[in-house]
Amino acid sequence: MLVQQFRIPEIIFGRGSIKQVGFCAQRVGAEKIFLITDRGILQAGWIDVVLPCLKKEGIAYEIWHNLTPNPKDYEVEEATRIYLESNCDAIVAVGGGSPIDVAKAVAIMATHQGSIHDYEGVDKISNPLPPMIMVPSTAGSGADITQFAVIVDSLRQVKMIMMSKSLVPDISITDPLVLTTKDPQLTANSGMDALAHAIEAYVSVAANFLTDSYALTAIRLISAYLGKSVASKTNLEAKDAMAKASLLGAIAASNALIGAVHAMAHQVGGKFDLPHGMANAILLPHVMEYNYPACIERFAEIAEAMGEPPGNKNLRQRAKVAIESVRILAREVGIDENFSKAGYSFSEENNLVLSTNASKDSCLITNPRDAGTNDIYEIFRRAF
Amino acid sequence: MLVQQFRIPEIIFGRGSIKQVGFCAQRVGAEKIFLITDRGILQAGWIDVVLPCLKKEGIAYEIWHNLTPNPKDYEVEEATRIYLESNCDAIVAVGGGSPIDVAKAVAIMATHQGSIHDYEGVDKISNPLPPMIMVPSTAGSGADITQFAVIVDSLRQVKMIMMSKSLVPDISITDPLVLTTKDPQLTANSGMDALAHAIEAYVSVAANFLTDSYALTAIRLISAYLGKSVASKTNLEAKDAMAKASLLGAIAASNALIGAVHAMAHQVGGKFDLPHGMANAILLPHVMEYNYPACIERFAEIAEAMGEPPGNKNLRQRAKVAIESVRILAREVGIDENFSKAGYSFSEENNLVLSTNASKDSCLITNPRDAGTNDIYEIFRRAF
Ligand SMILES: [Fe+2]
Ligand SMILES: [Fe+2]
Repeated sequence: MLVQQFRIPEIIFGRGSIKQVGFCAQRVGAEKIFLITDRGILQAGWIDVVLPCLKKEGIAYEIWHNLTPNPKDYEVEEATRIYLESNCDAIVAVGGGSPIDVAKAVAIMATHQGSIHDYEGVDKISNPLPPMIMVPSTAGSGADITQFAVIVDSLRQVKMIMMSKSLVPDISITDPLVLTTKDPQLTANSGMDALAHAIEAYVSVAANFLTDSYALTAIRLISAYLGKSVASKTNLEAKDAMAKASLLGAIAASNALIGAVHAMAHQVGGKFDLPHGMANAILLPHVMEYNYPACIERFAEIAEAMGEPPGNKNLRQRAKVAIESVRILAREVGIDENFSKAGYSFSEENNLVLSTNASKDSCLITNPRDAGTNDIYEIFRRAF
Repeated sequence: MLVQQFRIPEIIFGRGSIKQVGFCAQRVGAEKIFLITDRGILQAGWIDVVLPCLKKEGIAYEIWHNLTPNPKDYEVEEATRIYLESNCDAIVAVGGGSPIDVAKAVAIMATHQGSIHDYEGVDKISNPLPPMIMVPSTAGSGADITQFAVIVDSLRQVKMIMMSKSLVPDISITDPLVLTTKDPQLTANSGMDALAHAIEAYVSVAANFLTDSYALTAIRLISAYLGKSVASKTNLEAKDAMAKASLLGAIAASNALIGAVHAMAHQVGGKFDLPHGMANAILLPHVMEYNYPACIERFAEIAEAMGEPPGNKNLRQRAKVAIESVRILAREVGIDENFSKAGYSFSEENNLVLSTNASKDSCLITNPRDAGTNDIYEIFRRAF
């Protein structure tokens, strides 16, 4: 019996929709919100927009923002302590993937024993979690939609993946105006992360009729609008399109699951604390080369979504165009072609550790081509 | 501020997935299930499949099936009384649109004062509802997915529409094997209902980036597979496709809302107790003729989804093909071209009442062309 499962948050989308936070918090029955955010969001003034909406509904709050990109286990511990001490009963995150991942981890730790390390892997969560409302500030990590949370084990220097339908937030509020306060490099990295979600979901062995059209639409939007969004902070048409693409790619990724790109990106991110989206962008074409024999038809469709006319090329040529289109797009938005050019150099020894760990990452299970440690080692070597 | 909202149940899909009912009931915290079904489902033996799954999880149950097609207010009252008397804490419906609509109405009445008539209209539900798990047996009413419930006011002989995000069930379990026990006429009616959902959602003024691709995919699947599904009880490929189409059409309809076809079908259904899908099938091409000036581009896309090659016809000709394709499909699956051929004859006096009531139906708000009582009168006249 092949049973497909599909679960997404309630989605609220639109310019100005950040102001719905208070109403949504009231709807999920919150009395005191634990509000997780980051310094950039605070400085850009978005919390000043959120707080009056909470006050209007008579909802108390505790703000916490003491976290880093690629958030760490000890940050989750601190946040959980404050969540419990301040008697909060619901969680709101406003920010990129990091605050949202911490929000999910706090939701687990507020309702479960032990430490966050005990919940690494698939389906480890047994108790109901507090209500979660997410307002993403990037397009996008997709963490506002997905059943994934990623936290760095600071001792082992690896990223732990928590995967459970319980981690799908209750409400995702996407306000494209929030994207206008992000710098070009972050916009580029986040957009390539969204592209990796969409492409990995589209070729995943768990892809299905509910994820396919969203994945292709996301690829089409990113191909058309990422350059424009990186080029201008105020191009609202591009912000709208990238916000939609982030949502669609994340819906696809959360429900079709992802693959080797993320399995590998998690390792370099955990070990060297480099931006998740950049790691994905560098790895994506290399993994596509590896996956190619398993994905010829689907890569050809991806090529078409990225602008290749059906025209006179044959199927295999079109499939190759997909890989080349991803490479070209990454260059256009200023991402380097390998890790050393980006300023990170890895030794052979690093590669041994990284590829061994990647081969155990939960995301690898749905990659369309089986990849052993040696295969991953070789892909890493090319990407270094 | 234009804010789009999107909410769907958790979806479980696949042959044999009906056996997940027990596990799902346990997950939503149920101790005693109110199990609403109909005689056809009981006779086909599906409840014998469900009960062991409930027992396995230690979940008690109360079965109720005393309902008619186009379920009535007094049936809701009886069901609610038994739900409360038997101390149930969650609702499972296995059946077509009728048991599912009753399930939603019982959920309202178990947690709110007054009678079901008090909750007619948009957003009248204020208290949290008990968990709801729906197993549709037709493809499809879509009630397992949507935020709509439709109950007949037996005194006024009109259908009351309840519309609220709270009416979106918690879990929808679609098992295409359940479709194999339905007769051709019901299969045809249900399939045309699904087509009406998809087409009305695609041209709705509230259509959005999350509903469009699902609506078109549903139209494509129905155009390709409805005939096959009506032709054979055992064509599992067709049952799979129609089950998917029903889901996709309902996701689109619940979130983009629908239009004049449903606003009008509700009236004839309430007044003359005729099958909802058949009423939609007869009305759909007539409403499309009326909506045509507002929908030329979208109709052209619908034509393509129904098999018209992009070819050499101009835009308006392609749009007209969409209407003709719907007409042809309805004939192919044995649905008459108007109500009198189908054995229902309406007087001019009937039309006055029906069109006056249709003009107040909540579904009319999102129709792409404003329709006053006179317009609706004229459409009804052609469909009679
Ligand atoms: Fe990612
Ligand atoms: Fe319907």
